[in-house]
Amino acid sequence: MAYQNTLPKKSEDLSAWYNQIVLSAELADYGPAKGTMIFRPYGYRIWELVQEAMDKRIKDHGVDNAYFPLFIPESFLKREKEHVEGFAPELAVVTVGGGEELEEKLVVRPTSETIMYDAYSRWIQSWRDLPILINQWNNVVRWEKRTYLFLRTTEFLWQEGHTAHATHEDAVDTQKWAMQMYADIYKEYFALPGIVGYKSQSEKFAGADATLTYESLMPEGKALQACTSHDLGQNFAKAFNISFQDKEGKSEYAWQTSWGFSTRSLGGLFMAHGDDKGLVLPPKLAPIKVVILPVLGKDDKKVLDFCEEIKKSIKAVDSQFLGKVEVLDQDWKSIGWKASDAEMRGIPIIIPVGLKEAEGGDIKIQTRIEGYFKDENTYGNLVPVTSENIGAEVERVLSLIQGRLLENAQKFLKENTHIVNSYDELKKYMETTKGFLKAFWCEDATCESKIKEETKATTRCLPLDAPEESGKCVYCGKDATHRWIFAQAY
Amino acid sequence: MAYQNTLPKKSEDLSAWYNQIVLSAELADYGPAKGTMIFRPYGYRIWELVQEAMDKRIKDHGVDNAYFPLFIPESFLKREKEHVEGFAPELAVVTVGGGEELEEKLVVRPTSETIMYDAYSRWIQSWRDLPILINQWNNVVRWEKRTYLFLRTTEFLWQEGHTAHATHEDAVDTQKWAMQMYADIYKEYFALPGIVGYKSQSEKFAGADATLTYESLMPEGKALQACTSHDLGQNFAKAFNISFQDKEGKSEYAWQTSWGFSTRSLGGLFMAHGDDKGLVLPPKLAPIKVVILPVLGKDDKKVLDFCEEIKKSIKAVDSQFLGKVEVLDQDWKSIGWKASDAEMRGIPIIIPVGLKEAEGGDIKIQTRIEGYFKDENTYGNLVPVTSENIGAEVERVLSLIQGRLLENAQKFLKENTHIVNSYDELKKYMETTKGFLKAFWCEDATCESKIKEETKATTRCLPLDAPEESGKCVYCGKDATHRWIFAQAY
Repeated sequence: MAYQNTLPKKSEDLSAWYNQIVLSAELADYGPAKGTMIFRPYGYRIWELVQEAMDKRIKDHGVDNAYFPLFIPESFLKREKEHVEGFAPELAVVTVGGGEELEEKLVVRPTSETIMYDAYSRWIQSWRDLPILINQWNNVVRWEKRTYLFLRTTEFLWQEGHTAHATHEDAVDTQKWAMQMYADIYKEYFALPGIVGYKSQSEKFAGADATLTYESLMPEGKALQACTSHDLGQNFAKAFNISFQDKEGKSEYAWQTSWGFSTRSLGGLFMAHGDDKGLVLPPKLAPIKVVILPVLGKDDKKVLDFCEEIKKSIKAVDSQFLGKVEVLDQDWKSIGWKASDAEMRGIPIIIPVGLKEAEGGDIKIQTRIEGYFKDENTYGNLVPVTSENIGAEVERVLSLIQGRLLENAQKFLKENTHIVNSYDELKKYMETTKGFLKAFWCEDATCESKIKEETKATTRCLPLDAPEESGKCVYCGKDATHRWIFAQAY
Repeated sequence: MAYQNTLPKKSEDLSAWYNQIVLSAELADYGPAKGTMIFRPYGYRIWELVQEAMDKRIKDHGVDNAYFPLFIPESFLKREKEHVEGFAPELAVVTVGGGEELEEKLVVRPTSETIMYDAYSRWIQSWRDLPILINQWNNVVRWEKRTYLFLRTTEFLWQEGHTAHATHEDAVDTQKWAMQMYADIYKEYFALPGIVGYKSQSEKFAGADATLTYESLMPEGKALQACTSHDLGQNFAKAFNISFQDKEGKSEYAWQTSWGFSTRSLGGLFMAHGDDKGLVLPPKLAPIKVVILPVLGKDDKKVLDFCEEIKKSIKAVDSQFLGKVEVLDQDWKSIGWKASDAEMRGIPIIIPVGLKEAEGGDIKIQTRIEGYFKDENTYGNLVPVTSENIGAEVERVLSLIQGRLLENAQKFLKENTHIVNSYDELKKYMETTKGFLKAFWCEDATCESKIKEETKATTRCLPLDAPEESGKCVYCGKDATHRWIFAQAY
């Protein structure tokens, strides 16, 4: 597996690099049906680590997990007009079941608003039944002809939260809580900063009043919409008749939110941090946090025993980083192959162990990010590493790596976010480095679609912290009150 | 919600009781498409508790989780002849995707052998690639016209393990390990004993050489097939060309297993332990392990504060029972309603707390299983319960309940397992109490199907521990070497 020879350079051809690394690192594989993918164990484990972190936060907020059917009667989709218009072109439809043509066709869920809210309408009668806070971890299907592993697939995995409230205020609080939770996970686990803001009218979720998004920036200067959180107003409540008696006995429609975070996020993770040698995984999402590399030759038993001793010491530490510690003792692979392989898979730490180390010599903790420990936090400034203190040292180094990856990504985001004051300036960035472009926009959909047509830049969001200013739309020159983020989307 | 008045008596009409309690306890609801169901939070949480326990055991055995596509090209199913014959009548078929008629129809997975093994054939080249040990937690679809919530539904949730090995011996070891793991979970968590054994040729999995099953006995004397584990031999390896070079360089087909455990098991859990008052949940699978019931009237603040203090004490204990402790402080519900509701939901422990308790009086731990604490382990024999020792006492009582539920179920299984020596005797049991009937059978499929036709009794399994004996088939009188378990299946 001489992947080093075949892996395209990330710096030269991002997309070729990405397609190859996802296969080489055994993160995923193509499924046989168009647009489908296989999450291989190494890739799926990363999703499990995301799930563990997020599920805890979701439950702590009082949201319960549940599971709703995969199959939605076609008529349900049609009840909310904007919703069906948004999803109709992407649907997979079951027409035969148990050997018979179905009377009513069944849609494979593209998202679960309709099937969940039909149930909510039966479960909600009184203000005492509110709020309803339910989350699902499941698979959804949105037809794609061209597969881009993780980033664009017919079937993907996600969580979808769906809540119903007695007041609009409560709904908006939940919408914002969900987005803040996503932003925390992105920063803390993915080491991926982003911009939180509102989608434009044309880019918001089909059926929502307002959509919050987390937009992160990928290496080629393109934006990845990582997750969204919607204020559904009373749109679905009216379509599905979700009404309740309030404390005064008056009948009211419920206020709703939905919010989702998908495996698409993993594509962003791989793309953002990887380098020419392969993946770089932040320690918090690395399925394997450390590999120990036995350097064999003389007294192999002593070396291998010492490797196991070190492994135990590392595992004995109560770590914030979940992940395996592996001793690469397969004797049919060369040490060079193993080291390159671990590097390609993005394993944060490699510890080579030979007879010298086994006989009490200092142990060397090598990190995946080269050049990292040359600054004042340098690893070399600290105490010598032995089998006694190696657990604590590994933990410290993992923390440093996690922090540094976030710093690097923040620096990249900052360097590639530009204020543009004219359409020429916007076009120039779009033709060269791209990036997040902050430009005044009059909020008219015509300008938005013209800009997209001419430059590929779409409105990504109106940042939550964007100040009200007075300016002129970069396209039409009419009055504008805010700078929106423009960028090319994946 | 005067469910007590409407809940049919379990002892009088099991099936009416079951259908009602599943809805009343908010375990599940019907989905809009035929045969589908909604797992409501209370029911889904029980599945999560099963998942947590089982996922740990699966991972500890070195099996990795992964995720394969929902959609399987129709042609894949057809590659293994017995497999397609077994599943063809139950398939849901997608014929339209992204607005277009599909060239090749896609089957919604009824199980994942075919789609996984197509990938295995690419991933496996050498003995060094073996074993492959992969598990999935997912949803599968097998068409049903009539819904029986949890027990018989078009879509259900499960885990499916799929392994490939270099030798038949390794495969059989894995098949047996999986069944033993299931049996442990059934006993330790579900408090449901059962009989482990081999399925007959006509009842085994479509495409397997041999199927191990765990059969448990339900209150009406019917058998529930709770989970299965298959030795697939080289059948799929040949159909999907999963071959590898062995250590001598010779090409060989891999040996495979698959094994699954589904949400159907929850139906058995509810049915087995419930009583006329509603659900009875074993503490290890109870989403709520304790409810504290404030008895209000005088000095409500003092009572409610004390309830919170008790809750904290209970939660402070490092418990083997995962579950919430809830203070039922909703002032619009009567105390009688709350107590009956907790009882109906099968919550293992209720602790009523009034001013007397808040002022230092002994606290009473009430258990869902009445009459339980009248034996020598009686709760009353022990130290008085205060807010200091209540955590440890609750833990002890939960352990006692968990143990007692298993004992009760073991007693029931023993009392309803009968040796039958003639067809008349078998028929008599099938017309009255039913149960597990141990009868000699010649292992000829004709006798098996005649017995089923005439009595509804099917061969459930040949128990692993069945001794070789010499007897005569209860149906045809020909020589037989083992007593098989016969029973009516769900």
